[in-house]
Amino acid sequence: MTLEALLVAARAGDARATARLVTIVENDEPEAAALVRATYREAGRALVVGITGPPGGGKSTLVAALVGRYRERHSRVAVIAVDPSSPFTGGAILGDRIRMRERFLDPGVFIRSLATRGATGGLSHATARVVDLLDALGHEVVLVETVGVGQEEIEVMRVAGTVCLVSVPGLGDDIQAVKAGIIEIADVLIVNKADRPGADQTVADLRAMQSLAAPRVGSWSPPIVRTTATAGDGVADVVDAVARHAAWSRASGDDTRRRREAARSAVETLLRELLTRRFIDAAGHQGRLDDAVAAVADRSSDPQTAVLDLLR
Amino acid sequence: MTLEALLVAARAGDARATARLVTIVENDEPEAAALVRATYREAGRALVVGITGPPGGGKSTLVAALVGRYRERHSRVAVIAVDPSSPFTGGAILGDRIRMRERFLDPGVFIRSLATRGATGGLSHATARVVDLLDALGHEVVLVETVGVGQEEIEVMRVAGTVCLVSVPGLGDDIQAVKAGIIEIADVLIVNKADRPGADQTVADLRAMQSLAAPRVGSWSPPIVRTTATAGDGVADVVDAVARHAAWSRASGDDTRRRREAARSAVETLLRELLTRRFIDAAGHQGRLDDAVAAVADRSSDPQTAVLDLLR
Repeated sequence: MTLEALLVAARAGDARATARLVTIVENDEPEAAALVRATYREAGRALVVGITGPPGGGKSTLVAALVGRYRERHSRVAVIAVDPSSPFTGGAILGDRIRMRERFLDPGVFIRSLATRGATGGLSHATARVVDLLDALGHEVVLVETVGVGQEEIEVMRVAGTVCLVSVPGLGDDIQAVKAGIIEIADVLIVNKADRPGADQTVADLRAMQSLAAPRVGSWSPPIVRTTATAGDGVADVVDAVARHAAWSRASGDDTRRRREAARSAVETLLRELLTRRFIDAAGHQGRLDDAVAAVADRSSDPQTAVLDLLR
Repeated sequence: MTLEALLVAARAGDARATARLVTIVENDEPEAAALVRATYREAGRALVVGITGPPGGGKSTLVAALVGRYRERHSRVAVIAVDPSSPFTGGAILGDRIRMRERFLDPGVFIRSLATRGATGGLSHATARVVDLLDALGHEVVLVETVGVGQEEIEVMRVAGTVCLVSVPGLGDDIQAVKAGIIEIADVLIVNKADRPGADQTVADLRAMQSLAAPRVGSWSPPIVRTTATAGDGVADVVDAVARHAAWSRASGDDTRRRREAARSAVETLLRELLTRRFIDAAGHQGRLDDAVAAVADRSSDPQTAVLDLLR
């Protein structure tokens, strides 16, 4: 099938065509640039919601519940589960979670795991491109789920218009430490498994962390929402909180600021890659690069000296 | 103090001078390039051990116990705790862990948290530069601890000659999923808190994951070591397993392969940054870059088209 034909089918809601197009972008296949050019300008309409937090927080159950809610009002919803990937095999794990599978039976829901790291700019840029693609293809809501709370998850969350951080009662100190980094980018704080003992303490901990975090850009104060996703409790409150944040973001111009940052990151990443590819492809540069690497590896030179020599 | 004077003091074991030099490299201060040039060629001698694994595994306790063991045979040991950082405030958290503080009283142990993200190439390159610096300054053993098991932790672990993955009994499914990615780079598998119920199951799970992981480069088969770090049990076995791996690595040439990969990554990262900086600094390019970003942000262009225009 040609790219054109795939686009027609995917816009009409064909899941296999959509999956094929996502793969093209994810793996940076030869048609990827043409595909991005054909769809990029149509994106920017979807509600893009990020869901992040430490492992064990019940995020997949919450995402499944949110998908159900959004499907009541929207005809097409997409879920991207961004996996910590294997550097060698690039295996995707989250996609076949059982609760997700239930949603797979609904043709209005497109679900995909992303794990490939080969794409220019790493996983966060691959995610941004897939979100834009699904948006352009007509998904009105795109949920982006990550497991983990490291810097990469923070980068991935930058694609979202609204970021939800999911905590649960009773996690250890390590996890509390980890959350301090991500709390500054969270727009909605969720305490899931709120029927467990310790939920009040978790809410108090989150408030304390909020007060310690760097002041936010703009006037939004992230609400704390309690959920018990397995029973569906509080899920409507999350939908409401996300909608209020999105409305605030449009009214305050914060969404424009986010879009500009995302655009800067995409442009600079691509510029960096293309400049480097052009330099290396120039006559003789590949051999000189290999020599520089060998000199740095055996410590007869250092990286700075070797690269300045290369550029001379 | 001049760079020269700081180097003399740091080589003699002065902790404040060492800390100052680490800060210069970490923050990419103006003297950083000169400092790397002055020390890079002397590095490559230390035993560099990575300790990673999901939060809640008792890694800090294990690292403290390992430091004690290594100090029995080595005069200078360094610990670098690589933190998931705040994208805005860059706060470091792990450094003031209580058990670490005990070790702080030992002048033969240098401990530092790394969290800054401003450095060229991100946290993994900052970590590599700090490891090289501490190595060149005379630390015979450098332990690098990360919290988390995402792609960034995997990148950080590439600085280590031997990577230890710490698991614990009784963590949830999410964490098992996360480990699948990192297990392929682990040279020694540790089941900490091995006195807890479920330790046998964790060992069995690790063996199952090993059999599923991509085949390793070379003939090393990662051993599984049980520890109860709080009681000191098994810590000597970890030291032995690391020593055996390091000996295998030297004998098989695997360490040469690792060094070459690290050198390639350092050279390519720096090349990418310098080429981009030169391009942007050229007359008129900053303004054109800003225009390209604005066009991409309002979706009147796409990143690929905008960057190709820039390069024309």
